[in-house]
Amino acid sequence: MTTVFDAILAGTIPCHRILETDRVLAFLDIAPLAPGHTLVIPKEPAAFLHELSEASAAALGASLPRICAAVCAATGATAYNVLQNNGQGAHQAVMHVHFHIIPKPDGSAGLGLQWQPGVLTTETGESLAASIRSALGAEQAPGLPQA
Amino acid sequence: MTTVFDAILAGTIPCHRILETDRVLAFLDIAPLAPGHTLVIPKEPAAFLHELSEASAAALGASLPRICAAVCAATGATAYNVLQNNGQGAHQAVMHVHFHIIPKPDGSAGLGLQWQPGVLTTETGESLAASIRSALGAEQAPGLPQA
Repeated sequence: MTTVFDAILAGTIPCHRILETDRVLAFLDIAPLAPGHTLVIPKEPAAFLHELSEASAAALGASLPRICAAVCAATGATAYNVLQNNGQGAHQAVMHVHFHIIPKPDGSAGLGLQWQPGVLTTETGESLAASIRSALGAEQAPGLPQA
Repeated sequence: MTTVFDAILAGTIPCHRILETDRVLAFLDIAPLAPGHTLVIPKEPAAFLHELSEASAAALGASLPRICAAVCAATGATAYNVLQNNGQGAHQAVMHVHFHIIPKPDGSAGLGLQWQPGVLTTETGESLAASIRSALGAEQAPGLPQA
């Protein structure tokens, strides 16, 4: 599926570019939650983070600290959120992986979060962690104790 | 500054571990917004993402797709948010970099977002992007047109 980000990557739609590497493009969001709201996307056309290659995900991750530092330096922001949404139920609007860097000024601008935590019981935690580890199928390094 | 995550990394506080590598630890959040709410942290003790080394940030990024896939597989979630908060004004509670992977079930569980976008004018975009690029101090690859 073609998205607006494919058009930006192809150069048929312009952007306010921040950084471009062989794997990553960063540019300003045109509907910003706060000044300096920046999008960081892989050139690889994956809709969801869990579909992205490890190489693209590593390049994206590696690019974030210096882009965040530059956004803060340019805007004066001292707090910010990094957000990446997957699925329309999770507020994803463009079906191409994108990380938002959203400065959080004082007041109402920036990202608003509603945080209603529950409690993880030991039994549920053990069962759930085992299920996720099983799905991961990964060798676990020895070391840390399990809860 | 020592945080609870240092104690988890040191093994003095247990966790429901998902994955451990030489640079990264993933474990269940004990105050989950939804079942399967997972934290992914670097072993490097950085408070904010913009302070994290490129190597740790790359390792964190590289780990996310497969952890997200495993969380979805184990919980049945088809939508999820990845969130990383920097600064108390941006809802950061533990001063050690951490990425939340938060499944978004139907209904009210999961992450609640308030999204009040503005509009980026061409003039503001050009000026802001130039400031951020200047702060980044990076060579820009030729290719994409500027807005």
